[in-house]
Amino acid sequence: MIKAGIVGGTGYTGVELLRLLAMHSGVQVQVVTSRAEKGLRVDSVYPNLRGFNELCFSEPTVDNLLGCEVVFFATPNATAMHMAKQLIAAGVKVIDLSADFRLKDVSVWQHWYGGEHACPELLEQAVYGLPETNREAIKTASLIANPGCYPTAIQLGYLPLLKSKAIDTSTLIADAKSGVSGAGRSASVAAMMSETGESFKAYGVHGHRHLPEISQELTTAAGYSVSLTFTPHLVPMIRGIHATLYAQLIDTSVDLQALFETFYANEPFVDVLPAGSHPDTGDVRGTNRCQIAVHRPQGGKIVTVLSVIDNLVKGASGQAIHNMNIMFGLDECAGLNHVGLYP
Amino acid sequence: MIKAGIVGGTGYTGVELLRLLAMHSGVQVQVVTSRAEKGLRVDSVYPNLRGFNELCFSEPTVDNLLGCEVVFFATPNATAMHMAKQLIAAGVKVIDLSADFRLKDVSVWQHWYGGEHACPELLEQAVYGLPETNREAIKTASLIANPGCYPTAIQLGYLPLLKSKAIDTSTLIADAKSGVSGAGRSASVAAMMSETGESFKAYGVHGHRHLPEISQELTTAAGYSVSLTFTPHLVPMIRGIHATLYAQLIDTSVDLQALFETFYANEPFVDVLPAGSHPDTGDVRGTNRCQIAVHRPQGGKIVTVLSVIDNLVKGASGQAIHNMNIMFGLDECAGLNHVGLYP
Amino acid sequence: MIKAGIVGGTGYTGVELLRLLAMHSGVQVQVVTSRAEKGLRVDSVYPNLRGFNELCFSEPTVDNLLGCEVVFFATPNATAMHMAKQLIAAGVKVIDLSADFRLKDVSVWQHWYGGEHACPELLEQAVYGLPETNREAIKTASLIANPGCYPTAIQLGYLPLLKSKAIDTSTLIADAKSGVSGAGRSASVAAMMSETGESFKAYGVHGHRHLPEISQELTTAAGYSVSLTFTPHLVPMIRGIHATLYAQLIDTSVDLQALFETFYANEPFVDVLPAGSHPDTGDVRGTNRCQIAVHRPQGGKIVTVLSVIDNLVKGASGQAIHNMNIMFGLDECAGLNHVGLYP
Amino acid sequence: MIKAGIVGGTGYTGVELLRLLAMHSGVQVQVVTSRAEKGLRVDSVYPNLRGFNELCFSEPTVDNLLGCEVVFFATPNATAMHMAKQLIAAGVKVIDLSADFRLKDVSVWQHWYGGEHACPELLEQAVYGLPETNREAIKTASLIANPGCYPTAIQLGYLPLLKSKAIDTSTLIADAKSGVSGAGRSASVAAMMSETGESFKAYGVHGHRHLPEISQELTTAAGYSVSLTFTPHLVPMIRGIHATLYAQLIDTSVDLQALFETFYANEPFVDVLPAGSHPDTGDVRGTNRCQIAVHRPQGGKIVTVLSVIDNLVKGASGQAIHNMNIMFGLDECAGLNHVGLYP
Repeated sequence: MIKAGIVGGTGYTGVELLRLLAMHSGVQVQVVTSRAEKGLRVDSVYPNLRGFNELCFSEPTVDNLLGCEVVFFATPNATAMHMAKQLIAAGVKVIDLSADFRLKDVSVWQHWYGGEHACPELLEQAVYGLPETNREAIKTASLIANPGCYPTAIQLGYLPLLKSKAIDTSTLIADAKSGVSGAGRSASVAAMMSETGESFKAYGVHGHRHLPEISQELTTAAGYSVSLTFTPHLVPMIRGIHATLYAQLIDTSVDLQALFETFYANEPFVDVLPAGSHPDTGDVRGTNRCQIAVHRPQGGKIVTVLSVIDNLVKGASGQAIHNMNIMFGLDECAGLNHVGLYP
Repeated sequence: MIKAGIVGGTGYTGVELLRLLAMHSGVQVQVVTSRAEKGLRVDSVYPNLRGFNELCFSEPTVDNLLGCEVVFFATPNATAMHMAKQLIAAGVKVIDLSADFRLKDVSVWQHWYGGEHACPELLEQAVYGLPETNREAIKTASLIANPGCYPTAIQLGYLPLLKSKAIDTSTLIADAKSGVSGAGRSASVAAMMSETGESFKAYGVHGHRHLPEISQELTTAAGYSVSLTFTPHLVPMIRGIHATLYAQLIDTSVDLQALFETFYANEPFVDVLPAGSHPDTGDVRGTNRCQIAVHRPQGGKIVTVLSVIDNLVKGASGQAIHNMNIMFGLDECAGLNHVGLYP
Repeated sequence: MIKAGIVGGTGYTGVELLRLLAMHSGVQVQVVTSRAEKGLRVDSVYPNLRGFNELCFSEPTVDNLLGCEVVFFATPNATAMHMAKQLIAAGVKVIDLSADFRLKDVSVWQHWYGGEHACPELLEQAVYGLPETNREAIKTASLIANPGCYPTAIQLGYLPLLKSKAIDTSTLIADAKSGVSGAGRSASVAAMMSETGESFKAYGVHGHRHLPEISQELTTAAGYSVSLTFTPHLVPMIRGIHATLYAQLIDTSVDLQALFETFYANEPFVDVLPAGSHPDTGDVRGTNRCQIAVHRPQGGKIVTVLSVIDNLVKGASGQAIHNMNIMFGLDECAGLNHVGLYP
Repeated sequence: MIKAGIVGGTGYTGVELLRLLAMHSGVQVQVVTSRAEKGLRVDSVYPNLRGFNELCFSEPTVDNLLGCEVVFFATPNATAMHMAKQLIAAGVKVIDLSADFRLKDVSVWQHWYGGEHACPELLEQAVYGLPETNREAIKTASLIANPGCYPTAIQLGYLPLLKSKAIDTSTLIADAKSGVSGAGRSASVAAMMSETGESFKAYGVHGHRHLPEISQELTTAAGYSVSLTFTPHLVPMIRGIHATLYAQLIDTSVDLQALFETFYANEPFVDVLPAGSHPDTGDVRGTNRCQIAVHRPQGGKIVTVLSVIDNLVKGASGQAIHNMNIMFGLDECAGLNHVGLYP
């Protein structure tokens, strides 16, 4: 049994880690921290966990976490960077679900997230935890920068096209839509049901924090700089991301369906749907799966990729557990073999 | 591995059986029937099952089902009664999720469901499959009448009060609210999102088919006839039932919280919440759990019980699997140990 | 043109007043206050008002409001009571949408709302603004206590039964369900879509602030004390209240349909549906209308009344404007003749 | 009072015409047809219309409509084309909300809609009813082809860019999202709340019927052929369309905000939001308004236009009434001056 700790157990990615790890037979959560709820039983705040978790929230200190083999940071940005170094030094593996270690260039991080980075010396060593691209490095990593939700859905849709050099990378367009849980669990008027229900809108069109992360990783995959327009939208639902991705084909003779199926043939959590399909976020609800379809409308030069995930699972906590499974040599699918909660 | 068949695999209770059984290590689904979708792969209709089920829908004939040890009927009413007898005669255990065998009095069945009952001779032998009341009989049953969704939520809320004779049973009021999946998966204007979204209404106030079932079982529990007013409502959500139950206390000195906690102390799927709680359907989403709270507003003579379930799990397919576990001597919780999908 | 002011223009009842008054040809809103948004254009905060309102939010001071003929308080509780006296003394009519002047007994107010009432001397003079019961008093009132949303839906459902002495008033049960806008527009985790979407729950079962208001008014209508159990629930939708009301009939020979139709024959905003109907909150969305149906399930002794309103219109701002129309001798329906926004 | 008829009064655009015309002081609806509901009172099917409409549905025959000055066809495709000729010959003006007369090339119509066009001789005479482009022709038209919902939102977003020759028209991308009422009011599993709620997906990526209409009109506006990729998506809400439009700027020196504001300066129903805005479908709910924002993310060469409408109003019935107002010389805004139903 791997001994695990969760820092920031009261947010949606924290409680999702608790939900998934409660059904993972190889892990024992020993510490769940929350400054605000310290002393309260976890299942008094989250009644869905009654019978699965008897812990109380504790103070988020390094000392409290030293008995763990792995610590997940399900915290707001700029928290993990203050604790990761000590934990790693003590031999604790760290999986950070926030953005603290995702950007390799500290100046870019500081531009988008503000303030000074508390721990830039770990940026190089941090492994970007997208198993589909970095599986080998993850195996031996001590610090995982778990990808963002939009970046996961978008990268998985573009990767086969980039790796095969099938597209012109100068005008990529990622039109992405997210359920409201992506904004986290902190009170705001904008997140109220009266504001987001029965409504649809874009946000952050001028520039969203996930843009530099996506650009960095797409550039790495392509081998040269790509140019991306990224438009996030808010969908009146709780879970799910749908990325609609556009690119111009350089070579229109490529068999796109075969390309995608081959590329992901051995990936347990990426499922390429049959030609002509339209993936539905509802089919991956509660699962660590990405479902993808690739289209070439009217047989033209534009390729349209549709990529769906559950933002809290494959887009956050499930992917973090996938990373943990890889790091500790477990079956990659351990604790993650759920069927999507349809309807 | 228990060999199972599902008749009517394209409705919501059918696909929910498929979802839950895919995660049950002791069962192998061998046959899934659907007249309409015959020949199609199950996972082409339900993409959430991709990777978990390679079956095709087959014709719903007795012959096709004889190789099974247990057959679930996830069919509209008046279907199971035409096939159950032959299956039982062949030694196949039958769990009927429809209403064909729930009512003991065939004339009551005919009044509420119309037409002639095709198999009244099995009514007596059928065991009403609410494990919390009929566990012993279920163990040896060959035919289970799986309870309705409203009846499950309402009975579990009233049982401790009836069994303890704490309430006046002459004016029980069950104000119940259900998500839209309770109406099943058949096309109708009334079930469209444009009709049910952002709206709330009662229906069937003059008389709903679940009323005689609830009355029959509450009467059995009380030991004498009870009088119930039952008002179902439609909630703009997919899954979940919330029953708000009212009764007048005969003895106001009873410790209601202790009564409920004691009554359900050994039940794995009934969870009595701490005093003062308000159960939320969202906390039992996707699970076989009933969460209950009991209140006595302003310390008066009215007791108010709040009882929530997922109508497709504890209210249908999960309870059917619970019954199967009991019938086959498995761990009662096998395949049913899921944490509620919150948020 | 009546000159109107709105104190607290940023909450949902405030912006609903602005919406409705923009379509009212006899009123000119001259002042809209908001301490938090002072100086901002109203239509920059509420883009639905672009082209209909060129005002900026101003400071909520008595001086700013003295030029108005009528001032609406769309404020949190315990605000209007600090300003009403001066305004009334200056000849300004006051319509308070909060609870400050609804309860006649100041000790009851202090029990449920906490703190000291700043202006108990106005409680007697305040007219409870339910036009269906108090039309004559409203005509000459200078201070209106606009009813709460639950109290409006519940009173309109019970009134014909109480006035005709048809029911036993010792065990009334009001099971009420509200959309989330009823909680107002202030940031809280509980109001987030991730918390309230796809979920249903009761709240305040032990005691909700609207209970004393409802009890007071039902008692007034009945002429003697009534005993009410009131259970509010939260529906995953934005607008709408559905009250399901239960009572025991004393005289089962009464023609309930005729009773209700006659009682409301001359009321422009109460619509008694044909026998057997189930009113839907979606049919009154955006309107000042209450739709009601009365049932006697299975011809028994329980009467079930179904009453729906839009909580922000008939349950708040629309009713306030109805009161204003009556106070100023306008056509009662002026500015309120909207068709429900179905679907 | 203009005497109006509505053919197909039971669909969502039909009942929306009834809703809007009930609040239009210059029009009297005299005939509402429905083959299925013939003889029933309109307000028994649509309780939101109680008190506003006393008509019964009648048979959809030309004879029944000859007393009208204008007839709206709110029918499925391939209905209006069988009746329009006779009505026009009799001097009745026809406004068709279906697609029968939108495409100028009958072979294109036949490719996308199937079957033989019953009345190709009217195609040339039919005026495409987008007032922002065809106001003069609408004034004297006897047959209006009322635009589709997606085409309206998309054209209004692209028009200023096309007319000013600011963009490269060879790779336009329109990523559009619609509420579920866009699919109309006919029973289907796909339209059920259990299928569309809490889910998001694209559909018709290979080719949607609105594509040729949009291409035809954008080509007309540009003066030469444009190439468009159009991806429609289904949003779990009832009303609203959000079009996210992408194009490459030819001239990056153009002041996009000024371009849009000038272009629509005199249009009563197109509202260009301040720079940096994100229009929300919720702000135009129930109204005939299009709200638009134009962005140039990171100051690059891609222009992103956000355009929102209510698909049943500006995308259908409201625009039809706008056309009627123009045809009959009424104030263009008559009956259409509603404030968006926020929240």
